Amino acid sequence: MKYTRRKFITTLGAGSALLMLPAIPTFSEPLFSGDKKLGVALVGLGNYATHELAPALQKTSRCYLSGIVTGTLAKAQKWKDQYNIPDKNIYNYQNFDRIADNKSIDVVYVVLPNSMHREFVIRAAKAGKHVFCEKPMALSSKECEEMIAACKKAGVRLFVGYRLHSDPFHKAAMKFRTEGDSGVIYVQSEFGFKIGDPTQWRLKKALAGGGAMMDVGIYAIQAARYCIGKEPISVTAQEYKTGYKKFAEVDETITWQMQFPGGHVSNSSTSYSVPLNNLYISTERRWFNLMPAFNYAGIKGSTNRGELNLPEVNQQAVQMDTFSKCIFDNTESDASGEEGLKDLKVIEAIYKAAKSGTKTKV
Amino acid sequence: MKYTRRKFITTLGAGSALLMLPAIPTFSEPLFSGDKKLGVALVGLGNYATHELAPALQKTSRCYLSGIVTGTLAKAQKWKDQYNIPDKNIYNYQNFDRIADNKSIDVVYVVLPNSMHREFVIRAAKAGKHVFCEKPMALSSKECEEMIAACKKAGVRLFVGYRLHSDPFHKAAMKFRTEGDSGVIYVQSEFGFKIGDPTQWRLKKALAGGGAMMDVGIYAIQAARYCIGKEPISVTAQEYKTGYKKFAEVDETITWQMQFPGGHVSNSSTSYSVPLNNLYISTERRWFNLMPAFNYAGIKGSTNRGELNLPEVNQQAVQMDTFSKCIFDNTESDASGEEGLKDLKVIEAIYKAAKSGTKTKV
Repeated sequence: MKYTRRKFITTLGAGSALLMLPAIPTFSEPLFSGDKKLGVALVGLGNYATHELAPALQKTSRCYLSGIVTGTLAKAQKWKDQYNIPDKNIYNYQNFDRIADNKSIDVVYVVLPNSMHREFVIRAAKAGKHVFCEKPMALSSKECEEMIAACKKAGVRLFVGYRLHSDPFHKAAMKFRTEGDSGVIYVQSEFGFKIGDPTQWRLKKALAGGGAMMDVGIYAIQAARYCIGKEPISVTAQEYKTGYKKFAEVDETITWQMQFPGGHVSNSSTSYSVPLNNLYISTERRWFNLMPAFNYAGIKGSTNRGELNLPEVNQQAVQMDTFSKCIFDNTESDASGEEGLKDLKVIEAIYKAAKSGTKTKV
Repeated sequence: MKYTRRKFITTLGAGSALLMLPAIPTFSEPLFSGDKKLGVALVGLGNYATHELAPALQKTSRCYLSGIVTGTLAKAQKWKDQYNIPDKNIYNYQNFDRIADNKSIDVVYVVLPNSMHREFVIRAAKAGKHVFCEKPMALSSKECEEMIAACKKAGVRLFVGYRLHSDPFHKAAMKFRTEGDSGVIYVQSEFGFKIGDPTQWRLKKALAGGGAMMDVGIYAIQAARYCIGKEPISVTAQEYKTGYKKFAEVDETITWQMQFPGGHVSNSSTSYSVPLNNLYISTERRWFNLMPAFNYAGIKGSTNRGELNLPEVNQQAVQMDTFSKCIFDNTESDASGEEGLKDLKVIEAIYKAAKSGTKTKV
């Protein structure tokens, strides 16, 4: 993906950065019983696992990188050397289920192409492991429901990698509606980029489930939902295509509008052809803007009161520590499987609305 | 209107500010033959005339405030004293046509409620005066056509008060598509504000012709058209209402999308209920953003290359000098009556699309 992958460089660990932030609840000590950290196995060693999650797992305080699951022997060797991973904690996609017997792996983090999320979340649940799953949670709401049911049956927790729930700028955006006059009435959210390699899995429907909408449009949906704090009732959507060959299987550019109870509205765009990276929300008289809004780092923000000065955190480290705390404390998360399911339902309604050209119930 | 009406304070006149700007064509000397300035009569002494146009006419170099037309005696007296306007250059709506015999008035600037634009533009043309007319040009494209025909028949020029055509930030936005890679593929433009007094003419359909769309949505349409540099083929639109009593006659909030030849797309919003003030445009890899985008002063901008450092000008002064130069030199303007007509055609298509819920040809 073409995000600005500017690395978060700081002398502060994620935990201490958190403690600087009045907007984020500080955790009461002890953070968890004893010094135990959850062992996390990453499944799928692509760009996101390699450049974001593994480095983040070096900064986490409640979990650590204990294992990997990969189909590529060379990757296994490289990671083993780089992160000192014992052979017994290295799996491939065939022997993955033996992970059930591995006591040093508590969590399986599924970072595979979208089409493989369902299978590996369910296999992880059956192996008795808690699950972190990347977004979009699956190819359809039906798959999400199956994944939720499997985790429930197995008595394991399921979280979706909505990294921005762990970002101070987005936490401020979520709070904005509560800080004066009316709630958030209007949201404008856009996320897109010019996608490169035309052969990549993200452009194949069977693997990705969809195009820009599934990959980055989901951030714009999420943002509208958590800034307004309600669920959309209906959507309208418009699809545009210029690259008929490159985007033969998946959506290239979509604009869509969501109608929320009480007259709140969002207007959004996503694209695999142009750079888009903005979140604007407004109440009757106040506004809040992030641009760039959805990056791993370097988010900038302002409101009607002036510039936002918030610390930058390692989103992935904070996310994994937050999920781990939910597991230790047995508390709820706002990035649960149910949350992932809600987005898939919205996405399905958007695709339906774009196809029919009419307003569609979510 | 609730724009930030922060005044432009500088020691530079509009002319010299212009000369600092490489993005704006500098005028070859002599600017016009002799020292003649055009005499401008303002028709309708409301907020915009009082707080923007009259002060701007103290900074213009090619035109000056020579007369006024008002139905209110007290206003006539106040303006007469403040601007030293001779009695012979003061008219009311009844005796307005006698302006034909007044050689010290060359231009009539119509700043009345929208419903009166057609009548006074045509009366001014019949009096042999050039016309500046505020936006929206009229209530309908049919009215615009009548106004254009009347001015043509009378041999006078007709310009529409698209002040942002005279703003350096918007001139840079117009140029952006020519400065590398592809043209502008995507435009996001929003302009809105929380409207006050529920009894004002802007909320009466007979006087305003429509609500937020006619008043400020037109800026978002304009911006998409001049940034993409093409005319929209079709539009989709969605209307939302929460204030059923306040907005019984006119539109409160509308989102709309315009499709341009070659696959270019714009997504826009306008509202009388929330603050919106942004223009974002992107090519394949470059982007350009203004926020606030549509104010009289204080526009701020950035691009993928960094912050935009452009001088602030008095938009209205530059506009009126530019129109005056077109009159002196007999040259074309990009803010002509034909330009005003194009916007009304788009607005009519948007209203139709919002009502029908289907894609509508412009």
